[in-house]
Amino acid sequence: MATYSITVAYNGEPFSGFAKQPGQLTVQGEIEHALELLFRREIPTTCAGRTDSGVHARGQVVSFDVEEEELRDRSDESLLRSLNALTHDDIAVRDLMRRPDGFSARFDAVNRRYRYFISNDATPPLFMRDFSWHVAKPLDLDAMREAAAYLIGEHDFKSFCMAASAEGRRTFRHVDSINVTTQDVNGEELVVVEVVGNAFLHSMVRAIVGTLVSVGVGNRKPAWVKDVLAACDRKAAGENAPARGLVLWEVEYPPEQL
Amino acid sequence: MATYSITVAYNGEPFSGFAKQPGQLTVQGEIEHALELLFRREIPTTCAGRTDSGVHARGQVVSFDVEEEELRDRSDESLLRSLNALTHDDIAVRDLMRRPDGFSARFDAVNRRYRYFISNDATPPLFMRDFSWHVAKPLDLDAMREAAAYLIGEHDFKSFCMAASAEGRRTFRHVDSINVTTQDVNGEELVVVEVVGNAFLHSMVRAIVGTLVSVGVGNRKPAWVKDVLAACDRKAAGENAPARGLVLWEVEYPPEQL
Repeated sequence: MATYSITVAYNGEPFSGFAKQPGQLTVQGEIEHALELLFRREIPTTCAGRTDSGVHARGQVVSFDVEEEELRDRSDESLLRSLNALTHDDIAVRDLMRRPDGFSARFDAVNRRYRYFISNDATPPLFMRDFSWHVAKPLDLDAMREAAAYLIGEHDFKSFCMAASAEGRRTFRHVDSINVTTQDVNGEELVVVEVVGNAFLHSMVRAIVGTLVSVGVGNRKPAWVKDVLAACDRKAAGENAPARGLVLWEVEYPPEQL
Repeated sequence: MATYSITVAYNGEPFSGFAKQPGQLTVQGEIEHALELLFRREIPTTCAGRTDSGVHARGQVVSFDVEEEELRDRSDESLLRSLNALTHDDIAVRDLMRRPDGFSARFDAVNRRYRYFISNDATPPLFMRDFSWHVAKPLDLDAMREAAAYLIGEHDFKSFCMAASAEGRRTFRHVDSINVTTQDVNGEELVVVEVVGNAFLHSMVRAIVGTLVSVGVGNRKPAWVKDVLAACDRKAAGENAPARGLVLWEVEYPPEQL
């Protein structure tokens, strides 16, 4: 068996999310379609983070297995080139690597890093407009940082999970860090909320950002976040931040998996 | 009389260029439509650089005159807000300022600065895809710099001007600088060609970049650019670089015009 991973960047706008769905344009559907053309059979894939409709990725990782004899001496470079040629224009396959047999992009990931971009000027940014949430009201970044601190560590994040997805499932997760910074992107300033954790519930990062923005614009006090966590109820938290501002930035694997 | 200038950023993609044309979506058409709604009469505008269809602007400057009594005590801030509310979503009016009477965004400009973005990796960039030209073949930046040096100073740029526009007109222009650099934009590297000059002919920057890229990919030697200049014939230069990579970055005015 030969196990591969690819690192994939995509603009989420045209896709109905990552996960394959019949009759919909999806990232997984596009990648599996390309693999099927290459190997003349269905090749199932696994991803590090199932991004929702409209969510972008800079470093999504996707793994799949093929049989050695199916490779017919194809080099990694030629595989990479073919995958790029065969997938939708809004998908860029940045690299391809051989992994230890049975490697899973999902189960072997040690952490996932997301960045959420907010433009906080009177007018939206030029370059990052399709990759940010425009919040015109000035944000108090220190209040957002104070609020974020309550979320660090191991918690039941049920209040930050899409209600239907939380039903009957374990909703404890470990958030390693949440950093609220400003960043110059090509001459325009953006607020960046970077969230790193072992794994995330459905729409958890967007619920976290929506909640922090409620604090940032002054609708809520930072300590409110403690009550939100304790409520274990999706209705307690802020609205989901829009999909367009969220980017799956990077996924980390243990060194022995390289 | 009250003379104003506004600084305007726009994504050029949806527009048939800056200049008003009947029945077309144009940046000038949108701005003049907003001014007409505000002042209940047609207000002619002048811009610093007439960008072509698909060309973007970060710092386009547009000037217009109104009569004092037409202002009816409207503050600059309220004018700015109204203009943003009334123009197309892809136009952001970044600032508005009162200028000396009779100021012209076109005739008072001392120089114009354009940036052209090229992505030079195997796959296009995620964030800057709509604002760059994807050239997959590796570019020799030193060769491009050597070629660019021939264009600095006062020259007849007829070879770099759309043929129909050059007919019977003076085609001498002064190019102050052309810098070829690399820039990290949100974690992705781009090649940036920055061209500064007093004024530019029709599609001159795109012809310059197309010519430099012919040199960069190795199709031509840097010294070829000397022959191109001497030919005074549009067919001598490289193809126009695509509109989507070009951004009117900034326009400079003499300090006494502030």
